[in-house]
Amino acid sequence: MDYQEVLDTVREKVTPLIGCGRVAQYIPALATVDASRFGMALATADGEVHGVGDWQHPFSIQSLSKVFSLALVLDRGGDQVWRRVGREPSGSPFNSLHQLERDRGIPRNPFLNAGALVVVDHLVSLTGDPTRAVLDLLRAETGNVDIKVDDDVAKSEAHHRHRNAALAHLIASYDNLTNPVEVVLDQYTALCAIVMSCDDLARAGRFLARHGRRRDGTRLLSRSNAKRLNATMLTCGTYDSAGEFAYRVGLPAKSGVGGGILAVVPNRCAVAVWGPGLDKSGNSCAGLAALDTFTTVTGWSVF
Amino acid sequence: MDYQEVLDTVREKVTPLIGCGRVAQYIPALATVDASRFGMALATADGEVHGVGDWQHPFSIQSLSKVFSLALVLDRGGDQVWRRVGREPSGSPFNSLHQLERDRGIPRNPFLNAGALVVVDHLVSLTGDPTRAVLDLLRAETGNVDIKVDDDVAKSEAHHRHRNAALAHLIASYDNLTNPVEVVLDQYTALCAIVMSCDDLARAGRFLARHGRRRDGTRLLSRSNAKRLNATMLTCGTYDSAGEFAYRVGLPAKSGVGGGILAVVPNRCAVAVWGPGLDKSGNSCAGLAALDTFTTVTGWSVF
Amino acid sequence: MDYQEVLDTVREKVTPLIGCGRVAQYIPALATVDASRFGMALATADGEVHGVGDWQHPFSIQSLSKVFSLALVLDRGGDQVWRRVGREPSGSPFNSLHQLERDRGIPRNPFLNAGALVVVDHLVSLTGDPTRAVLDLLRAETGNVDIKVDDDVAKSEAHHRHRNAALAHLIASYDNLTNPVEVVLDQYTALCAIVMSCDDLARAGRFLARHGRRRDGTRLLSRSNAKRLNATMLTCGTYDSAGEFAYRVGLPAKSGVGGGILAVVPNRCAVAVWGPGLDKSGNSCAGLAALDTFTTVTGWSVF
Amino acid sequence: MDYQEVLDTVREKVTPLIGCGRVAQYIPALATVDASRFGMALATADGEVHGVGDWQHPFSIQSLSKVFSLALVLDRGGDQVWRRVGREPSGSPFNSLHQLERDRGIPRNPFLNAGALVVVDHLVSLTGDPTRAVLDLLRAETGNVDIKVDDDVAKSEAHHRHRNAALAHLIASYDNLTNPVEVVLDQYTALCAIVMSCDDLARAGRFLARHGRRRDGTRLLSRSNAKRLNATMLTCGTYDSAGEFAYRVGLPAKSGVGGGILAVVPNRCAVAVWGPGLDKSGNSCAGLAALDTFTTVTGWSVF
Repeated sequence: MDYQEVLDTVREKVTPLIGCGRVAQYIPALATVDASRFGMALATADGEVHGVGDWQHPFSIQSLSKVFSLALVLDRGGDQVWRRVGREPSGSPFNSLHQLERDRGIPRNPFLNAGALVVVDHLVSLTGDPTRAVLDLLRAETGNVDIKVDDDVAKSEAHHRHRNAALAHLIASYDNLTNPVEVVLDQYTALCAIVMSCDDLARAGRFLARHGRRRDGTRLLSRSNAKRLNATMLTCGTYDSAGEFAYRVGLPAKSGVGGGILAVVPNRCAVAVWGPGLDKSGNSCAGLAALDTFTTVTGWSVF
Repeated sequence: MDYQEVLDTVREKVTPLIGCGRVAQYIPALATVDASRFGMALATADGEVHGVGDWQHPFSIQSLSKVFSLALVLDRGGDQVWRRVGREPSGSPFNSLHQLERDRGIPRNPFLNAGALVVVDHLVSLTGDPTRAVLDLLRAETGNVDIKVDDDVAKSEAHHRHRNAALAHLIASYDNLTNPVEVVLDQYTALCAIVMSCDDLARAGRFLARHGRRRDGTRLLSRSNAKRLNATMLTCGTYDSAGEFAYRVGLPAKSGVGGGILAVVPNRCAVAVWGPGLDKSGNSCAGLAALDTFTTVTGWSVF
Repeated sequence: MDYQEVLDTVREKVTPLIGCGRVAQYIPALATVDASRFGMALATADGEVHGVGDWQHPFSIQSLSKVFSLALVLDRGGDQVWRRVGREPSGSPFNSLHQLERDRGIPRNPFLNAGALVVVDHLVSLTGDPTRAVLDLLRAETGNVDIKVDDDVAKSEAHHRHRNAALAHLIASYDNLTNPVEVVLDQYTALCAIVMSCDDLARAGRFLARHGRRRDGTRLLSRSNAKRLNATMLTCGTYDSAGEFAYRVGLPAKSGVGGGILAVVPNRCAVAVWGPGLDKSGNSCAGLAALDTFTTVTGWSVF
Repeated sequence: MDYQEVLDTVREKVTPLIGCGRVAQYIPALATVDASRFGMALATADGEVHGVGDWQHPFSIQSLSKVFSLALVLDRGGDQVWRRVGREPSGSPFNSLHQLERDRGIPRNPFLNAGALVVVDHLVSLTGDPTRAVLDLLRAETGNVDIKVDDDVAKSEAHHRHRNAALAHLIASYDNLTNPVEVVLDQYTALCAIVMSCDDLARAGRFLARHGRRRDGTRLLSRSNAKRLNATMLTCGTYDSAGEFAYRVGLPAKSGVGGGILAVVPNRCAVAVWGPGLDKSGNSCAGLAALDTFTTVTGWSVF
């Protein structure tokens, strides 16, 4: 298959949808992003990388960071984290407190904000500095040593921070937080403010298509855990649209409110797409369309 | 009516129930209180005070402080606070986040923790130091200048504080908090840690039986607002048992997890009762029985 | 006090509000009622009756019937019904299934639709024909033998019936329904479709102001149970506005979506008011204003 | 791969777990099933069938029927049904009314009872007799003309029927039911009471592994719709354990409270397993273990 041709075809087909949706408004640094941006990159299991559009333009990865935090927690701490967080789709918005209260401080899955806070807390205990650990992983996998946290974005999360602080304190009230709330929030906020391009993301996500193997051939995750991470992405990775996403795209994926989506075709490739306009569930509107088209063109869904 | 005889009769009838229920466990300083304590005091509209049992023994007033905070807010700020908090019974536990989320940061009533945080925040803006303002009111109404905050209790609220911090941050995320979360939490915690006896409480609550008039004859509240405060106590004052309390006792009342209850017989008297063992709704078990008996003996329910 | 003068004053003051709110739309027979109707009647404990406006015009009492069903159940069956239904305000709309599911088929109070279905079911078991029993009571108390069910209204409840059928089946699924769902629904629907005037209602509700004594001096309810029924009306009688109603009016009351409200001044009188336009909670808009004015003019709130 | 050997290995490994869990209690006809039964069958895309244990013993398929109803609705009515039912995991028990109320009568997915009622209602409109249509499909795909409804099971669903009646009436109250509630409930109940063996089920589910192609080579579903049905099974097919199931097994699957599970390995085979003991989510305990082992032994997860 000619990957570059596939990407060109996808871009052509989704052109009418580029700019659809609404750019995230809650952070000034996100709200000013040009809605007409669109990029897509593909990194194959054996090392090729292709891209179209703004595929080398950096953007705020936001919740995409949750994939890498979780991978590191599984790598360093094994299954321990599953005592503190579930892996069921939530049926609720990503920042809901309702379920967290009902489930007595055990977040339903690691891709909800509540669950990611627990994962970050776990990673603080394991590594001391999750942001450093994630940046090290990202830089090593991409070869791009310039990947870093956008301090302006991190600072401008203040308003949204109240919501996450509420989640963190609620988790702490059920004795499911080990480190101080402020430490966990600072790390969580920094991780969400990491800036990467589709090019970077596809390379960084390649280990998910290689059953856990890193760029250098060493294992980040066991074969089992890599599959499990893909499974969790498929059932919980796209907010309250996981069913819709599986139905239309049929690939494990994680989205972020910065407009990025990282999808995995097991054994074949990682695909990253970026379009800042979001649908009402918080997923990239053009990005979802592009992945839908991608699986139609290639026939590559897991189903 | 011979008030002292009434109180003696009530105490005799509830003797078998003294010690019933379970002392609040979440704060060490509360958990060690002797469950067999029981006191009751009555302060008439025209100045008499009577008591039985441990009626002069000080205890932690906890949520009873919410009555005095609300009275001061209505006194100083008028109806403005009702833009920020509702006055409907909640149908949920006192510290639930669910409704607060559903109602977008507007607590359902001022006697829920969330609502009291908003009231305290309002009072910070109005007075600078709510704890000082409430202590001034309590000392003036009781003549007891020794009423103060128990610092040990205040300090030991740390665990429960996570829950209240979650509420405060959630409120703040909906732009319904004016002052910093930490300032509001410190004031809220100090107010809950005030220590008073039944004797003090009955005297301090007398203005509710006098349609808003203070001990010195000046008005704390207008006649209308005094009635309204009583109405809010009746519908919202006893956690998720307001219906049960109205059914059995039939008086406006506010309870606290320290085991105190303050009830009002409009035009006649304020009654304070204390028994540290709580029923499953968080109301004093012996205290509820005593007030039930009190209204049966006197025939004084508002219905 | 000159009652007629009071009523005239109230009508004059609320004139600008007559016609406010929105007439219930869910039943054609209700939706066509003239929104500008307004009537008010007062029946004193010792037998006087006064009225203004359309006080002798019959209207659909709807949920007001729940007061009389409950009174009969307490009369005939004593406290048994409280094993099957609670008495706490709900914090939810009157026909919510959520709480019923959470509480495993025990409705939170007898004035929610779910609770009234249980009361009617209980009354079927006690009397065989609740509608007959309630009509007998109403006719005896008012002296008006023409009070009857409006068959057109009963028939036109079909759509809303699905909702009530859902509630009844859910209750039955928790083994809290004794009689067949269809029997209970038919009786419930007939009771809601009873037609009365303010004149009738005030007379029929007089026993609540007389601590349970009927027109002929015999007891319908014990003094205790009469007080308790008033207490339940105050905390649960006006849908999700019980707190607001207590705050503004300060009297036990029950409202219906036909625009009627029945309020009680213990020891003094029963007051019935009718205005078909409803506020968003489902209470008569002009009726609430009239009762608010009434308690301001007379000074008669229970607080 | 030697399929028979795989099945033998799986059975051997799960032997210690046979009999685990708790047999469904709510229907007498289910409660008396022998908990120590265990069977497993595999039908390959190209026609082979293998089995172990009680693989030819018939059992009540219960919710497994939802897969076949949905397939027929998609076949006959195309995408129309998606206007009436969503495809998101629920985060709630299979018979919850809460979400249905919140979502105003649109069930979250077709595998919840509420969603299946809508699917059956749709199928009544399309075919007149859904049970007949499903039986025709099952008999044709399996070659077993004896597949039928167990009338005893259908009759004994009476108690559970109240719950489903509540769901159906609630759906009807939102105008999302076309046919009479009783008709829909009768069809739904009959479909759940169909009796099949693992042998039958694996054969019947083979079209899901063949991208929609039936036994005779004709299409039941388009390639797209077959993939989509698999996607919906993966995200919504195992009650409130879809995330856990994807994590451990990694295959599209649907379970029933009769203890059956039907899983799909796209392109390769359909697998049916039966063990009557259920875990707390309502999925077969031994069945889940067997499928977990099956994917470990074969390496066949979709991830």
